[in-house]
Amino acid sequence: MQSTKRIVVKQYPKGIPTENDFEIQTIQINTDLEQNEILVELLDVSVDPYMRIRLRENVPSGYFPSYPLGEPMLGGCIVKVLNSKHPGYLNDEIILGQCTWQIHQKLKITDNEKNYLKIEQNEKVPLSYYLGSVGMPGHTAYFGLLKVCQAKQGETVVVSAASGAVGNMVGQIAKIKGCHTVGITGSDDKIELLKSIGFDEVINYKHCNKDILKLKELIEKTCPKGVDCYFDNTGGFILDAVTLCMNVGGRIAFCGAISSYNEEKLDADTGPRLSSLYVIRRLKGIGFLVYEFEEEYPKANEDLIRWVNEEKIKVLETKEKGFENIPKAFVKLFTGEKLGKIVIEM
Amino acid sequence: MQSTKRIVVKQYPKGIPTENDFEIQTIQINTDLEQNEILVELLDVSVDPYMRIRLRENVPSGYFPSYPLGEPMLGGCIVKVLNSKHPGYLNDEIILGQCTWQIHQKLKITDNEKNYLKIEQNEKVPLSYYLGSVGMPGHTAYFGLLKVCQAKQGETVVVSAASGAVGNMVGQIAKIKGCHTVGITGSDDKIELLKSIGFDEVINYKHCNKDILKLKELIEKTCPKGVDCYFDNTGGFILDAVTLCMNVGGRIAFCGAISSYNEEKLDADTGPRLSSLYVIRRLKGIGFLVYEFEEEYPKANEDLIRWVNEEKIKVLETKEKGFENIPKAFVKLFTGEKLGKIVIEM
Repeated sequence: MQSTKRIVVKQYPKGIPTENDFEIQTIQINTDLEQNEILVELLDVSVDPYMRIRLRENVPSGYFPSYPLGEPMLGGCIVKVLNSKHPGYLNDEIILGQCTWQIHQKLKITDNEKNYLKIEQNEKVPLSYYLGSVGMPGHTAYFGLLKVCQAKQGETVVVSAASGAVGNMVGQIAKIKGCHTVGITGSDDKIELLKSIGFDEVINYKHCNKDILKLKELIEKTCPKGVDCYFDNTGGFILDAVTLCMNVGGRIAFCGAISSYNEEKLDADTGPRLSSLYVIRRLKGIGFLVYEFEEEYPKANEDLIRWVNEEKIKVLETKEKGFENIPKAFVKLFTGEKLGKIVIEM
Repeated sequence: MQSTKRIVVKQYPKGIPTENDFEIQTIQINTDLEQNEILVELLDVSVDPYMRIRLRENVPSGYFPSYPLGEPMLGGCIVKVLNSKHPGYLNDEIILGQCTWQIHQKLKITDNEKNYLKIEQNEKVPLSYYLGSVGMPGHTAYFGLLKVCQAKQGETVVVSAASGAVGNMVGQIAKIKGCHTVGITGSDDKIELLKSIGFDEVINYKHCNKDILKLKELIEKTCPKGVDCYFDNTGGFILDAVTLCMNVGGRIAFCGAISSYNEEKLDADTGPRLSSLYVIRRLKGIGFLVYEFEEEYPKANEDLIRWVNEEKIKVLETKEKGFENIPKAFVKLFTGEKLGKIVIEM
């Protein structure tokens, strides 16, 4: 037996999550391993906006299930093997996978081993990047932009939540691919930084007071040839405004809808019905989850790691420290006080 | 010179079109032909909902232009050649194409001859069918269902405006392809007829008082396995209700939005923002125009004409008579007093 700490869901957030929605517990775990089990220790933890969708009693069917109350949170983590009874995993190896927010834990490795990927850091690509620019958010940007939006050289790409873990990567990949690249963000402070990593133009939507036509004007000004691809991380009035600016044959990748995640009901918000514009301009709106492209992760990683090594991609990361600060870091996803990927180092 | 009649746009409709928005004029035309011109006489005229989009000053960019005030309406027609100075067209031949609402008119045949297609009727496929089930609306249903929605055997297909020229064909083709087929219509009177041509279930949305959740319940009841394909002719609250019932991986073909066509601004109506559902269930919403599939019309016609000949497709047609009744027939598109395709015979 050994003492360890875990963070459980105490209650489902009402509105924006707070640290009080979580509880840190000290528990005793049995560290004896059965065949194919490994004992691991948390190194880095990822917090991501999609988790908010699961922090509610009724998640719409088709998605991952609710996080159960009283149970530890589950998400992307980097862990170190402390002890192994699986022939494929050795002590001290580093693994990327879905783990609970619990400092020490046992993982049962089934045939489906691709869920626990061994990784190696190098000078230019430290471990934490595997939770961000060369991990799930990077893959989301890569496949959403190149496979879902099918962005082509010379086209105009707009992305919302442009300073986020996914958004900043969309902008940088779009730039590498030769697109005119416009980011939408919620803070003037982030504009220069986003331009420095490759965005041609950056719009602060907060200057528009949720006025769709005002935002539309800003988009038109920064996208003189109209919008061919919109990578939507927010939904809401930003989505409406960009939709009004789409070119004939435009593609919208629905990646997230963070503007609605803190609503009790995800469809509580209302806005103009724009389906006639989909007809008139032959628009495509395509919802996706990165896991649909699982088979192609190796190809994506080849590109992403090369671009990081070549410094064509600058990694934006907000690092927090300490297990007990995970809830605080999670809350920052929804309050805008962050830049790029939030990773919590133990 | 010869006297003939035409119907021009007198004013853009405010709300639902009325006969007063049009004017019948008698004019003199010069019937002398230049090289590659033909003189034709109207036989059958098609009125279609999309025309309402063009009956306004500001049509959103990317679509066909406004119909100019004072000029004759233009649309799908069947005409007979009266006189020809084009080697490819002989007197008495029958042509399907875009013509004005004018009894006698000259057409200039350019290299782009595919715009004027020669047709021949037979006992089972009279001329007027080429404006409906085996013409543009039939093609729209065919490609929208099979190419855009990619409906597969065993899947559930829902279509709105199910008694319309396109909607009834979507239902019949879906049935031929082995789908569970549900129509949404606005009148109890049409339910039995729609079932008799192949719909498994028919919903009258007017019993729902625009209550999205009430309509959702009716859809759930008639679609026990959820909805895989939705062919949207209406937009509005019907679209919202069906979207809530879509299965993971569901496809929505945005074909029309008749619920908004009579608004001054096509996006004046508001409803719940559902982009989060597109993410969660990986939905695709695809706007299309039938002309995108022009290259494949011959293949579609082979199928459609064969199905009509085999009586697998029953043609729903509302026939009106007389040139001067075209405006009255056009108005019926928006008042629900019709069934299937409206064709006006001279």
